[in-house]
Amino acid sequence: MPARLFSFIGGETGLWRVTEMEVIVGKPLPTVVGLEIASGSEIPSDPHASWVLRGITSNERYADREERRQIVAELLDLGRPEATCAALIPIRKNEAWWELTQEERLSIFKEQSHHTKIGLEHFPTLARRLHHCRDLSENEPFDFITWFEYAPSDEVRFNGLLAALRAIPEWQYVEREVDIRLERDQV
Amino acid sequence: MPARLFSFIGGETGLWRVTEMEVIVGKPLPTVVGLEIASGSEIPSDPHASWVLRGITSNERYADREERRQIVAELLDLGRPEATCAALIPIRKNEAWWELTQEERLSIFKEQSHHTKIGLEHFPTLARRLHHCRDLSENEPFDFITWFEYAPSDEVRFNGLLAALRAIPEWQYVEREVDIRLERDQV
Repeated sequence: MPARLFSFIGGETGLWRVTEMEVIVGKPLPTVVGLEIASGSEIPSDPHASWVLRGITSNERYADREERRQIVAELLDLGRPEATCAALIPIRKNEAWWELTQEERLSIFKEQSHHTKIGLEHFPTLARRLHHCRDLSENEPFDFITWFEYAPSDEVRFNGLLAALRAIPEWQYVEREVDIRLERDQV
Repeated sequence: MPARLFSFIGGETGLWRVTEMEVIVGKPLPTVVGLEIASGSEIPSDPHASWVLRGITSNERYADREERRQIVAELLDLGRPEATCAALIPIRKNEAWWELTQEERLSIFKEQSHHTKIGLEHFPTLARRLHHCRDLSENEPFDFITWFEYAPSDEVRFNGLLAALRAIPEWQYVEREVDIRLERDQV
């Protein structure tokens, strides 16, 4: 069974070098220069770790059958040699979002915001992994963590996707978001 | 903030005495005679504990706005003095369920199975708490744990509700279910 639980460890070292940490909304995260990613329930002990964000992959909650077919068909693997750029984007949504019913959330996600459609239009072949945090424990600082990997030549296109998503109604429910950019050496 | 994480500790002792453990489908749980419930992330160390099932309360994923209004209006508190009977029912759904999209699950839950409606019709004032396990870690034995409390005089009605739920299409996706009944002294 593939690992579902991932820890993102921000500190002084790591495979990934942090190139920028931008607070989009809400409280910042302490600045770090390196990031390590661990899978499973063991977290490597980095004495210089400044923070650890954890999330678990889960069942999809909004995509319909046709969208899932498209997503699965077009999603690229993580770890491609040319994808030396990455983004780690932890997000927390506000209480108003979580007090909506699932149908209301689905309506905002889909009919009002076209979240999946925007992703497919702007960057159909983006390599990403979505992690849920909210149900992992009582005190996780974020609700979702998304990890993206892309080639340096795709950075402009990736920024365009984020700008489009941040403009949709769904994003009005985001009360904390940090946009962390990273790079690694080509392997 | 109210506690969201709960541990159900089966062993030789506990506030609740186990009166029956019935395997509805799938693998049994080891037999115990007592049950303790702990909230938060601390688990009391019971050297005689046979198993610990953990789950976390979460946002509702299927009820619509009107159903939620009815549920919230009619749900009774846990811990009422007259409610000296309880049921602990851990459930695991199969891979086919989790491979459905959220819309497909909602359709089975609602249009095909009327899960919430059956609950409201059979036992509108039932005290219960639903816990999610699946996203707590990678290796939880169940997906959901529901805890019910009721007065001895309501046992027949409660059994009727369970029989109705086990007959709906949604229950065809249940691959493991244990029905644990308990009682405690009146306080």
